[in-house]
Amino acid sequence: MAERAKQAGVIFRPHFKTHQSHEVGKWFREVGVNRITCSSLRMAKYFSDDGWSDITVAFPVNVLEVDLINSLAVSITLNILVESIESVKLLGPNINEQVGVFIKIDAGYGRTGINSKNLDELNGVIEEISKVEKLNFKGFLAHAGNSYSSRGRDEIEEVHQDTLQNLEELKNHFEESLNDLTISVGDTPTCSIMNDFGIADEIRPGCFVFYDMMQEQIGACENSEIAVAMACPVVATHPERNEIVIYGGGVHFSKEKMVKDGRSFYGQVVETNGIGWGDPIPDTYIKSLSQEHGIISAPDKFIETIEIGDIVHVLPVHVCMAADLADGYLTTDGNWIEKRVNSLR
Amino acid sequence: MAERAKQAGVIFRPHFKTHQSHEVGKWFREVGVNRITCSSLRMAKYFSDDGWSDITVAFPVNVLEVDLINSLAVSITLNILVESIESVKLLGPNINEQVGVFIKIDAGYGRTGINSKNLDELNGVIEEISKVEKLNFKGFLAHAGNSYSSRGRDEIEEVHQDTLQNLEELKNHFEESLNDLTISVGDTPTCSIMNDFGIADEIRPGCFVFYDMMQEQIGACENSEIAVAMACPVVATHPERNEIVIYGGGVHFSKEKMVKDGRSFYGQVVETNGIGWGDPIPDTYIKSLSQEHGIISAPDKFIETIEIGDIVHVLPVHVCMAADLADGYLTTDGNWIEKRVNSLR
Repeated sequence: MAERAKQAGVIFRPHFKTHQSHEVGKWFREVGVNRITCSSLRMAKYFSDDGWSDITVAFPVNVLEVDLINSLAVSITLNILVESIESVKLLGPNINEQVGVFIKIDAGYGRTGINSKNLDELNGVIEEISKVEKLNFKGFLAHAGNSYSSRGRDEIEEVHQDTLQNLEELKNHFEESLNDLTISVGDTPTCSIMNDFGIADEIRPGCFVFYDMMQEQIGACENSEIAVAMACPVVATHPERNEIVIYGGGVHFSKEKMVKDGRSFYGQVVETNGIGWGDPIPDTYIKSLSQEHGIISAPDKFIETIEIGDIVHVLPVHVCMAADLADGYLTTDGNWIEKRVNSLR
Repeated sequence: MAERAKQAGVIFRPHFKTHQSHEVGKWFREVGVNRITCSSLRMAKYFSDDGWSDITVAFPVNVLEVDLINSLAVSITLNILVESIESVKLLGPNINEQVGVFIKIDAGYGRTGINSKNLDELNGVIEEISKVEKLNFKGFLAHAGNSYSSRGRDEIEEVHQDTLQNLEELKNHFEESLNDLTISVGDTPTCSIMNDFGIADEIRPGCFVFYDMMQEQIGACENSEIAVAMACPVVATHPERNEIVIYGGGVHFSKEKMVKDGRSFYGQVVETNGIGWGDPIPDTYIKSLSQEHGIISAPDKFIETIEIGDIVHVLPVHVCMAADLADGYLTTDGNWIEKRVNSLR
């Protein structure tokens, strides 16, 4: 991804909400990354503690956390996200440090942000920001989350082009009046597939660090590129109903579900292969999850190979949610990688 | 619940997986509880650290954790759960301390356990347990999880009676050959509604400590009995599409979803009422969740009252999952209640 960004001539500001780990962050440093994205101020604090000094918190600012914004901005270059005049007015009197501000743009997704065509409102927010000495307008940030409902390269490209087109109109409108405008984009599907980011200056993909079943379904990765699997002990087998019970439940996988081939599931079982894993095993998947355990549906042929105490490997549906619940990662070399846990959330 | 158990003449061994808090545990001690249930050995360790000395881990034993079983059983009365001859054979040579063993019975739910009518297999497991000096057979344990698909008193009662009937046949079959057989049951729906537990000796409800939207839908509680709400800051409003964006996402609520009146949702917004909360607000609910934020669908009338920086209160769909993700609880008196976080999982 670093190479792709370099080729495309855009800043690579990876989202660290997926791995939430100092150690994984170091891998990014090794390829020259020095700017990152987080999804909360507390996550930004966690990474600033490891020396990251240029962080965008890509979440509509929670004005109740202004103290945390001030304390972070003392030591790092911090960018926050606003999407209303109201937020800027509430922040204004309470901001004591220099803070960069992006305006969240809804470039078609319809979840958060100001519609890119709503120039009146955008002008209003920019004007309000300019009244606050400590707030420095940086540019426009969009998240094409609609790419998650895409299936395959053509649909991803369509979302990508729509997003860039809307942002280009926006940039054209404002570039005469504003200097050094940064346009930031970057969901994992488009960043995985596209090589040209048009007028965008920066990309912020996150999930690609591990990938997952959802990204495979979208067409953002191959199954063999999924880099994490949950290692789950078998606690019971029920061959009479083609089920295996694993220690691995909703508190480990999250309850994120996906539908594929008309079947809904919470995880895909893959071949166990020494200390790593191999290909997906057909028709072998988590069909339901309780708090601590999961029920795998599996054909006879697979169940016959399984004994209690075995460990099965399961690819998560949505790795951001599953990794958030984990205490850390065990590499296939046997090393433990620490991560942030929810006591810091 | 303690009173109900006393009236019914059954042991009250509440499940602590819902609250996962030493301090909430103390409330149970005050009403005379001295035996508890946990869903993992590490959770049992957490509660043994606070002086709980009689714990049943109601999860099919993970034989890979035998060291943790041994270390816990040195200091507390520990009961584990088995559901196969294989598990007992794997544990046998490695158990160094006295441990109580329940056999998990499938009394109709069909998730885990040995079918209550499968006497051959039950005899086999009991015989295998008797061969291991350190394992002491205690009785049969069932979880009528099928009560969760019940709606209303009659359906809950039907599940309850079926479960008890199956367990009664089991008890009748074994009571001549075995002494002091304990029959343990107890999901929140049946324990909330029923006053008679038939031949059961012990109940293990957990979720009732807080209740949630799912329990209300089942008919196990009234909405006014739900004792936790998530306090979520408003970060944006989009009146043009009747939406409010809150800081409160999948990493806070979990992705547990329910369907009511043909509508699927992740949380129910209630009136904010001083520092507590009041009644559910009609047609005002979380319609979708991202990692860190939630989208509330709300009528104009409600949105007009909301400003950025307000806190809205949301009742969780499934409190066991949402509480598991929380760092603790803030009481309406302003006191912080610590709980176990996932670094201990």
